[in-house]
Amino acid sequence: MLKNQNKNLINAPNQVREYKSGNDSIRISSLGGFGDVTQNMFVYEFIPSGDVSKSQIIIVDCGVGFPEEDAFGVDLQIPDTQYLKDKKDRILGIFITHGHEDHIGAVRFILPILGQNIPIFAPKLATAFIEARLAEVNIRANIQNYDENSLPFSKGPFTVDPIRVTHSIPDTFHFAITTPIGIFYHGSDFKFDLFPLDGKGADYQKIARVGQTGKVIALMSDSLGSDHEGWSPSESSIAENFKNEIVSTKGRVFVTSISSNIIRWTQAIEYGKSVGRKIVIVGFSVDRAINIAKELEYLTLNETDIIPVERVKNFADNKLLFLVAGFAGQPDSALSKMIMGKHRIKIKSGDKVIFSSPDYIPGTTSNIFNMIDLLSKMGAEVVYGEKEELHVSGHGYQKEHSLLINLLKPKYLLPIGGNYRHLKSYQEMAKKLGFAEDKVILPDFDASATFNSNGSVDTNFHIPIRKVLIDGFGVGDVGTTVLRDRKTLAEDGMFSVVLLINKESGELNKPPVILSRGFVFMKENNELMEFLKVEATNKFNQATSSPANMDFIREEVQAYLEEIIYKKTGRQPMVLPLVIEV
Amino acid sequence: MLKNQNKNLINAPNQVREYKSGNDSIRISSLGGFGDVTQNMFVYEFIPSGDVSKSQIIIVDCGVGFPEEDAFGVDLQIPDTQYLKDKKDRILGIFITHGHEDHIGAVRFILPILGQNIPIFAPKLATAFIEARLAEVNIRANIQNYDENSLPFSKGPFTVDPIRVTHSIPDTFHFAITTPIGIFYHGSDFKFDLFPLDGKGADYQKIARVGQTGKVIALMSDSLGSDHEGWSPSESSIAENFKNEIVSTKGRVFVTSISSNIIRWTQAIEYGKSVGRKIVIVGFSVDRAINIAKELEYLTLNETDIIPVERVKNFADNKLLFLVAGFAGQPDSALSKMIMGKHRIKIKSGDKVIFSSPDYIPGTTSNIFNMIDLLSKMGAEVVYGEKEELHVSGHGYQKEHSLLINLLKPKYLLPIGGNYRHLKSYQEMAKKLGFAEDKVILPDFDASATFNSNGSVDTNFHIPIRKVLIDGFGVGDVGTTVLRDRKTLAEDGMFSVVLLINKESGELNKPPVILSRGFVFMKENNELMEFLKVEATNKFNQATSSPANMDFIREEVQAYLEEIIYKKTGRQPMVLPLVIEV
Repeated sequence: MLKNQNKNLINAPNQVREYKSGNDSIRISSLGGFGDVTQNMFVYEFIPSGDVSKSQIIIVDCGVGFPEEDAFGVDLQIPDTQYLKDKKDRILGIFITHGHEDHIGAVRFILPILGQNIPIFAPKLATAFIEARLAEVNIRANIQNYDENSLPFSKGPFTVDPIRVTHSIPDTFHFAITTPIGIFYHGSDFKFDLFPLDGKGADYQKIARVGQTGKVIALMSDSLGSDHEGWSPSESSIAENFKNEIVSTKGRVFVTSISSNIIRWTQAIEYGKSVGRKIVIVGFSVDRAINIAKELEYLTLNETDIIPVERVKNFADNKLLFLVAGFAGQPDSALSKMIMGKHRIKIKSGDKVIFSSPDYIPGTTSNIFNMIDLLSKMGAEVVYGEKEELHVSGHGYQKEHSLLINLLKPKYLLPIGGNYRHLKSYQEMAKKLGFAEDKVILPDFDASATFNSNGSVDTNFHIPIRKVLIDGFGVGDVGTTVLRDRKTLAEDGMFSVVLLINKESGELNKPPVILSRGFVFMKENNELMEFLKVEATNKFNQATSSPANMDFIREEVQAYLEEIIYKKTGRQPMVLPLVIEV
Repeated sequence: MLKNQNKNLINAPNQVREYKSGNDSIRISSLGGFGDVTQNMFVYEFIPSGDVSKSQIIIVDCGVGFPEEDAFGVDLQIPDTQYLKDKKDRILGIFITHGHEDHIGAVRFILPILGQNIPIFAPKLATAFIEARLAEVNIRANIQNYDENSLPFSKGPFTVDPIRVTHSIPDTFHFAITTPIGIFYHGSDFKFDLFPLDGKGADYQKIARVGQTGKVIALMSDSLGSDHEGWSPSESSIAENFKNEIVSTKGRVFVTSISSNIIRWTQAIEYGKSVGRKIVIVGFSVDRAINIAKELEYLTLNETDIIPVERVKNFADNKLLFLVAGFAGQPDSALSKMIMGKHRIKIKSGDKVIFSSPDYIPGTTSNIFNMIDLLSKMGAEVVYGEKEELHVSGHGYQKEHSLLINLLKPKYLLPIGGNYRHLKSYQEMAKKLGFAEDKVILPDFDASATFNSNGSVDTNFHIPIRKVLIDGFGVGDVGTTVLRDRKTLAEDGMFSVVLLINKESGELNKPPVILSRGFVFMKENNELMEFLKVEATNKFNQATSSPANMDFIREEVQAYLEEIIYKKTGRQPMVLPLVIEV
């Protein structure tokens, strides 16, 4: 019904009135949990007249998270969709803000859970990234493109109007979400780059129009940069440095960055071509990103500009520019393989390696510095953030937040996309702009923010959120028990003693057999092993004097071995006696 | 023989002449390896007339290293003293530059190896720290204090003259080491703080006098700050911020920092006392550091200034200043325990927690930020480096290095105390000062730099260096095999299948018994376990058809299980079949 209306949706009072009621509400939940930078997935739920069973839902973003350092062996983390289990048929659509993995990467896991026919709305670039991933796992999705010229999407009680902003990936949008009780502005990851390299700035006019309605109830805002004063540096501010590093070099040049950072690759290619270098793409993820960028015409790259890795030897060093995947030191990435000497391309003296990427990614910092050390040692000149500004943040600082707030004039602020310290920084900053503390909503990790049509807000409602971990092919089957075991095994290994018991006599059939890994070097610790065999035997014989209960005996032996192992070695391996009756 | 001479040793030509010979040399080795920031331990070896068996040795520093992130369960790393094994009786002394753990922490492990009667020479503060540690393990050492007024130490062919410098711990020294072939200047960790808080600046005059001899062959120099241009900020530059944070607060104030950072504690105490706060010391390491500082009169603290943790409840919030151990989030530290709610002191709303410490320590960064998030969540205001300058580096920047080089006029530079990227930065910086690349010596990790009396230098000699890891009570018994096993166990856990074989028939006695941890949650994966039991049985029966070789069968079963487990789960647990004949 809204299709033929003015696309400036915020001027559509009729539509709003239709749903107006005394006690309608909008409940906003984060399925990745509030206070997390990654695994973005937000539920906007319209609850008419307090009747939760009749609620209608749209979802914003569907991203993966990156496991904490002590989540051993876990590849990824995804939002927990348990809350939506009985509401699947009331989900009207998934709206994607931009193509970063922490906003789109969970689509391939979650679509099979929620239903493959849920419509997804995404900008072109994000669509291409999502589709490439879905193709790998043979999932088909119902994705509809949008851009700044699209009409607003009307979905049940919601109307979602995308607004172009800037970020560290092109094609990033905010959403003005009009609901029966007012407007919610979903201000996901953004900065206000006033001199963007691709010339496509944020649509300040449109943001202003949203604010002019006077109906903005809440701004859900990126908060990651809110502990920095001032205005974040523009992408163009590093262009000069970056260009110099490429054009002034005599040897081969290698550039590494976040694979999806199409703007950076475009720059690198332009500067390389300007001095007659051929482009060599090394690594699957960069190859995919550049192909997508080419198809969508973010960059022009002729076939003759690119040469395959095999033909590198036919070109002089100063005619080569390598774009390389793996800035964060992922063990299987192209860059790691080069450093380990396991790649066809060998780093040599005279090479220059440019890290145009953040220095600090949780869990990877020392990987990055290790790589820099190793590359230096191989004779390469390494250029990285601590030495020169070659990367800027994609997240706005305090002045950009102030501008957004001033344009929108929201009643409430709800910071997202940050850890708790960033949410607090955002709250402090908002205080300077005159927002009382209770106007800045900081829900608990698993709480929802419920905005009622009478103007009240509460954060009392909680939803179930577990950590859903991806390890290998398993989704969610690695839980706290498994992780706790891995942690113990990681610290001091395992020590197992197999006790074979004669079923009739209840006595040991033969001396205990020991199986141990990661505890001590077995070959050099025969004496310790023999000692532990004797101790296990003695303890077993002692314990069997009571009426034979194998579980009880096992526990006794375990406790005793743990104690003497700690006393003798100061270590606490996982002790696992196995009692088998034969 | 030198005791009555002018303490300005570099003017002692007679002593030098005595040893002069055509082909004497000084060999400098790093027992922690060159290219490491920590585990500092350097060997200066005088080799007369090329006769290595007659060499004489002094050692500079004896520090611990901190294990890399993938060195699971390892507590510490220490230098490898294997090279000194057959030279113990030729070690003339260990000279300590300052009291940081990476310069003194290995004394308690290495003294028992090299001999407890080796004389140690250390500044007062370092001595107190060393002795406190040695007392814990009941080791007595022969330690002699020195300060800026001490006469130079004459030890065989070496004369060691300490020179006061500044660093992030008081009582830090460099050494001018005069040898028969010339002077070596050991310029360990330093900055040139021109406005030091304790008023004790570096002895620029004395450094100049060393340079004036014209005999400085090499400067072994701290290189950690050499990738920063300019001059490092003075400790006094943060004093104003730090003071404001303490005196302007209405609630309780908690300060955390590196435990040995006596200057920071002294400041905190002074500011706290100025507004009538009582000092509460929380944590063993801070308590020890402050007691040592009191004894050595670095700070004045009356009994009435301090109150024990038990009496905190008798004081108003604005009368309390807590000095807390554990800024890096070590799990057993006071701060971690407070955050986990396991400490008598509970963090509450209105508290302020000041991190006056580096934000980035390899392996601990996300710990630090996690703590900040949790403290914010508990209602505390947290002040940390990203928000405000509350910590300065203890390592000089390029201008300070230039000054040191200009005062000393060394022929060669040998950067130490940095990772390879820092050594390269130092080399680049030195180029700007006119040092050709071959005048900046970068030995391999395990190579020695040998300076010959004919003026030549080489780095061809290599010494044995393994990683010596400390885990529990074991020194060096955790090697690469154990660590590799721990890594595998950490990633995907272990899966063991016990096959009981009838000795006579060679057949399975009963169905396989499975023991698995950290792989999948056993209770929810019965089906998988049953499947693997069947597969193991089948594979065993197949394999036994060949003449019975239990090792062969075990390997066959192992390879097969690894394969099907990976196919089914995408995981690679450590697979450990155990074949037992009964």
